[in-house]
Amino acid sequence: MGSVLLPDLATQIIIPVCAVIGIIFSLIQWALVSKVKLTPDRNGSPANNNKNGFNDSLIEEEEGVNEHNVVAKCAEIQNAISEGSTSFLVTMYQYVGIFMVVFAILIFLFLGSVEGFSTKSKQCTYDVHSMCKPALATAFFSTISFLLGAITSVLSGFLGMKIATYANARTTLEARKGVGKAFITAFRSGAVMGFLLAANGLLVLFITINLFKLYYGDDWEGLFEAITGYGLGGSSMALFGRVGGGIYTKAADVGADLVGKVERNIPEDDPRNPAVIADNVGDNVGDIAGMGSDLFGSYAESSCAALVVASISSFGINHEYTAMCYPLLVSSVGILVCLITTLFATDFFEIKAVKDIEPTLKNQLIISTVLMTFGIGIVSWIALPSSFTIFNFGVQKVVHNWQLFLCVCVGLWAGLIIGFVTEYYTSNAYSPVQDVADSCRTGAATNVIFGLALGYKSVIIPIFAIAIGIFVSFSFAAMYGIAVAALGMLSTIATGLAIDAYGPISDNAGGIAEMAGMSHRIRERTDALDAAGNTTAAIGKGFAIGSAALVSLALFGAFVSRAGIEVVDVLTPKVFIGLIVGAMLPYWFSAMTMKSVGSAALKMVEEVRRQFNTIPGIMEGLAKPDYATCVKISTDASIKEMIPPGALVMLTPLIVGTFFGVETLSGVLAGSLVSGVQVAISASNTGGAWDNAKKYIEAGASEHARTLGPKGSDAHKAAVIGDTIGDPLKDTSGPSLNILIKLMAVESLVFAPFFAAHGGLLFKLL
Amino acid sequence: MGSVLLPDLATQIIIPVCAVIGIIFSLIQWALVSKVKLTPDRNGSPANNNKNGFNDSLIEEEEGVNEHNVVAKCAEIQNAISEGSTSFLVTMYQYVGIFMVVFAILIFLFLGSVEGFSTKSKQCTYDVHSMCKPALATAFFSTISFLLGAITSVLSGFLGMKIATYANARTTLEARKGVGKAFITAFRSGAVMGFLLAANGLLVLFITINLFKLYYGDDWEGLFEAITGYGLGGSSMALFGRVGGGIYTKAADVGADLVGKVERNIPEDDPRNPAVIADNVGDNVGDIAGMGSDLFGSYAESSCAALVVASISSFGINHEYTAMCYPLLVSSVGILVCLITTLFATDFFEIKAVKDIEPTLKNQLIISTVLMTFGIGIVSWIALPSSFTIFNFGVQKVVHNWQLFLCVCVGLWAGLIIGFVTEYYTSNAYSPVQDVADSCRTGAATNVIFGLALGYKSVIIPIFAIAIGIFVSFSFAAMYGIAVAALGMLSTIATGLAIDAYGPISDNAGGIAEMAGMSHRIRERTDALDAAGNTTAAIGKGFAIGSAALVSLALFGAFVSRAGIEVVDVLTPKVFIGLIVGAMLPYWFSAMTMKSVGSAALKMVEEVRRQFNTIPGIMEGLAKPDYATCVKISTDASIKEMIPPGALVMLTPLIVGTFFGVETLSGVLAGSLVSGVQVAISASNTGGAWDNAKKYIEAGASEHARTLGPKGSDAHKAAVIGDTIGDPLKDTSGPSLNILIKLMAVESLVFAPFFAAHGGLLFKLL
Repeated sequence: MGSVLLPDLATQIIIPVCAVIGIIFSLIQWALVSKVKLTPDRNGSPANNNKNGFNDSLIEEEEGVNEHNVVAKCAEIQNAISEGSTSFLVTMYQYVGIFMVVFAILIFLFLGSVEGFSTKSKQCTYDVHSMCKPALATAFFSTISFLLGAITSVLSGFLGMKIATYANARTTLEARKGVGKAFITAFRSGAVMGFLLAANGLLVLFITINLFKLYYGDDWEGLFEAITGYGLGGSSMALFGRVGGGIYTKAADVGADLVGKVERNIPEDDPRNPAVIADNVGDNVGDIAGMGSDLFGSYAESSCAALVVASISSFGINHEYTAMCYPLLVSSVGILVCLITTLFATDFFEIKAVKDIEPTLKNQLIISTVLMTFGIGIVSWIALPSSFTIFNFGVQKVVHNWQLFLCVCVGLWAGLIIGFVTEYYTSNAYSPVQDVADSCRTGAATNVIFGLALGYKSVIIPIFAIAIGIFVSFSFAAMYGIAVAALGMLSTIATGLAIDAYGPISDNAGGIAEMAGMSHRIRERTDALDAAGNTTAAIGKGFAIGSAALVSLALFGAFVSRAGIEVVDVLTPKVFIGLIVGAMLPYWFSAMTMKSVGSAALKMVEEVRRQFNTIPGIMEGLAKPDYATCVKISTDASIKEMIPPGALVMLTPLIVGTFFGVETLSGVLAGSLVSGVQVAISASNTGGAWDNAKKYIEAGASEHARTLGPKGSDAHKAAVIGDTIGDPLKDTSGPSLNILIKLMAVESLVFAPFFAAHGGLLFKLL
Repeated sequence: MGSVLLPDLATQIIIPVCAVIGIIFSLIQWALVSKVKLTPDRNGSPANNNKNGFNDSLIEEEEGVNEHNVVAKCAEIQNAISEGSTSFLVTMYQYVGIFMVVFAILIFLFLGSVEGFSTKSKQCTYDVHSMCKPALATAFFSTISFLLGAITSVLSGFLGMKIATYANARTTLEARKGVGKAFITAFRSGAVMGFLLAANGLLVLFITINLFKLYYGDDWEGLFEAITGYGLGGSSMALFGRVGGGIYTKAADVGADLVGKVERNIPEDDPRNPAVIADNVGDNVGDIAGMGSDLFGSYAESSCAALVVASISSFGINHEYTAMCYPLLVSSVGILVCLITTLFATDFFEIKAVKDIEPTLKNQLIISTVLMTFGIGIVSWIALPSSFTIFNFGVQKVVHNWQLFLCVCVGLWAGLIIGFVTEYYTSNAYSPVQDVADSCRTGAATNVIFGLALGYKSVIIPIFAIAIGIFVSFSFAAMYGIAVAALGMLSTIATGLAIDAYGPISDNAGGIAEMAGMSHRIRERTDALDAAGNTTAAIGKGFAIGSAALVSLALFGAFVSRAGIEVVDVLTPKVFIGLIVGAMLPYWFSAMTMKSVGSAALKMVEEVRRQFNTIPGIMEGLAKPDYATCVKISTDASIKEMIPPGALVMLTPLIVGTFFGVETLSGVLAGSLVSGVQVAISASNTGGAWDNAKKYIEAGASEHARTLGPKGSDAHKAAVIGDTIGDPLKDTSGPSLNILIKLMAVESLVFAPFFAAHGGLLFKLL
């Protein structure tokens, strides 16, 4: 066994320093964004001379519009969106807070009861010669780390939303100066969120480990078992964020469109539509806050899974601190790599025209992946002994550092492949979406048939990429390999989130331009930003799903170890029924979420119709619609509707584990994983493809597209139907499924000692 | 170990006698159907006095239409449909015949090469003290039984089609006398097919076993390994039947509707539509021939799976002939039970009004299930020793006869539950479909969202039913239990097929009435028959999927035994990558089939448009459209398009087994099974629900339905879009998935010795 180049002290310095660098960088980006002023000159004088430091004429000036009014109006709209978003998240967090407390108590009771709340130390599971801390300590510290994970997740989502609602109007205003300026503003804001989240997640985890260590000392096994609560906390908040936010955003979107666009024939984001604020709020609470919590959860879980396995391997047994911290070091280097990558988009190159946007975003992925490959190489070289042993279901497996390097890389590059495949299937620059658009010629039915087929087909390559990633990392380093592969995919999370958050910000910017009555030339610029954002959103979902698959497999492996299962044999009845029922859960869950969106949208339709019918002068723009009621409807509906799917996910592992035992639960986890990944990928891509097929017809950028258009043609109407169907698929049920598979796995892992000790009641009775 | 009441000789008499009774019964039904004369009186005189033995006035006579012309016209149309169907099937069988020969050679070469084509006897696998026949014999006899299975399957499909195209016009003519008469004709014809298929399958299998026995003697293991080829042959033909037929029928259907109904505004089945004959042909080749082959395949496979396991258990080792034939005895009794059940619909009760149709069909299911429960009891009592041992992956498991009785029953009753749940989710008498219809109010998008959610939701109970069935039968009698549970579900296959075939026959009858220009009162009667047929078709698909799940699990178990795998551990990389890739295959397959339907439909649209534009007088009914070209387009397209999905299914086990080995193949089988079942059930039920939601609005039978209608309203248009989307889901991709999961399993079983000996090349090289 070789020695490690990096001293322990250096490790303890490097990790927090990288995290702090990330936080400082994100604050700098925020400062740059905030240079765009949303308040007209303080003394109320007309537009000041430097116009946010820009000397050319703004579009308003060319067109003779009063710049002062426009800015004020943007600020007002931004305020409404920000208030709506904050109020929804605060309401949601209140409900979720109750859940958090109840679940924290459950964790304590379940885990504490494993050994009857005894305070005596017990023999360690893996190192039979030592004594470990009592189960009660695990219960207590798991509860604490659960709460910490939950709070960090909530904070990540909330901060992301705050930044997005801070940046949207600023992006609109910058769009007056040119598409490049607007892009930089939107992208920098995305980066604020990405870096804050990545750095925050790392820092909190690092501090927690160090604090817990004060109690646990050398009991690595106990320490990292308790730390898994962090992942559970992160992911359970993400569940409600994704589902609640997803229902919110799509109820508002579908409701606004069905009355505004279809019945009243007014454009999207028209200020006369009472649901327009709710719709824009939805982008921030669903796509930003939900996505933020989701990826934070994946990050926390894969770190936990890797650390748990490491703690029972030679790292833990020989107390190799630096090697044990390998997962955290990878993430630390990831922050630095993403920092450099960001500069490529904001400083090294400048976007001059619309056609530069997509390549710039795509290059972010490529640059970060290439740089990170070197970063992983360095970390693997200095932080790992040249060979070490990994615990693999009862056998010790010798692993070399270059093998672990390959494990992380295979995850990283699988992520890139998934990203590109997603882009291919959802961007209207390529033939798949163009074929779907073409099928609108014969109506909505063929559009839907081709769209569904596209979604099914888009599953093939990502699954092969995941399968190869799993095979390589599994063969090299068993479950530890899978966990670090997941971390590899997530190591560039800051960049991933930046380009992902960029989308909804641009979407909002367009909405604000429309509502503020700005020139259609500005709307064209924001639309161009938004079209690229649709694709990056799809790529972000691809990453989220791919990493979720790896993470949940790693968690599943850790669960099996912790529950003391020797083998998960498909050909035993207990496992097989778990497998087939687990494969059914994504369908049950999707049925719930899709129907929730449907019913919430119908409520929204009623309210919007009521306002149009009862508020005089609303259609003429003389009376202001009652935006707040629509916001409230979306809020109430999503809070109410998120409970059943949330309960399904949270209760399934508890019920199965308690009544059917760990073998059946293993089957359920494997089944929901392999089935959920397919449903999630196909749903996201189908929805993304329909959205961009519609945009393809609307933009009319090619000869072919013009034969299908213009807006309002039969083909366009068919495309709008597809787009509406895709909404709940791509923004509610699809992305929530990541969390379903991850969360069930991490929950099983946390409760594993209880299930192993007291589970399987039903079979015991029979 | 107890003795068996039934002497071997009695077993050898009972099985063929029951089969012959089934065949005679089906011939009697045929004779009764053929009493309806399709030729006007021989000497050309006007309608003879007894009018097919009916003395009341026919509708034509009341309305003063010349009955002579109507009969002649019906005969002419029937002839066209019959010719089209025959010509398609003959063309398809030519291509499939080439495949059959090539694949037969492959089987011989692969299996023969296991021991280098040696003609020497080898030591038996399970009974190490005896000598068994050489691998070359297995290769030879497997090839023979593959060919026999393929030919029987082709024959089943072909005969079914012949009967259906013989009965359709007769049903139309009988509809003139009343709905009861028409029902009996359609139902009897369905029974002809059901009994012929069940009896034929049993008889061929029985004769084959006895002939092979002349060579194999006491080597039961070798004999029944060779017999598995029968299942493979049956299912591989079913694959092409389902996929080819499914593409054919939906290309014609969608193509005819898109031009006829949408562009030209002429009713369904209007004789001016050039694709109308192709559309009616499609019902016979897809729903009848495809379904027949499919269920025959399930039946053959579950029998083979049970026999293989029995041969290596105490039955085989102790040469207990009667006990060994238990699966065949269950099927024999099933034929008698179905015979009695049929009389309840045709003789004991009479249908007097439209409202009697659905209950009568539903009662068929209930009666056959209840009677069969007693039948199974008797067989289990007289044909099984009171206890015996079953081979269970290396261990012998003691099973009591009452346990095996429960295994068969649990399959039988799970089938009934699946049938009823399917009915609940697809019949417009219940709220799920009514909710979907109601969502058409806000347009096609909400209709699709609610329809997809319904399909997802409809998966829940069937999966629980299957899971419980698996758990019970697995726990009692391991893989033998699963196999006999599948047989239990299929034991009432004759009744299942009768009510299933009844649907397309009624559909055709309606088409003929429309084309022959008969009174709309007749069309109303055939529509009522058809509406009930939609639900029974969905139930039939539910059965097909449920039994496929059980069958493929049983085959999977037999494969694992034969390949000598000790355990299929999900937590090994080889198995897990198989699992996740296997779960992806149903999506890949569905993407292919759905896109095939889409492109074939577009070709059909072009041809129909061309005819409408270039044949003068076609819209006025003066010129006859060129039906044959449309038939040819559907034929060519489906033959061409069935190859890629067919290749995917047939090649996957060969490639995976040869290059990745038996562990990965086990993963693939388990993954495709648990994922495919969900996709298949949801696709079938979503499609069925959309179809009946449309029919619900059209029929306008309730206050609620009338607020959505009438035909041509916006809600109805939205419903039509849903129906069209559902077509490929419910009739092409959904039902083909049964075969995907079964066929991959049986193919793996047949090739298991080769994979075990020479497979996994890739891993051997690495």
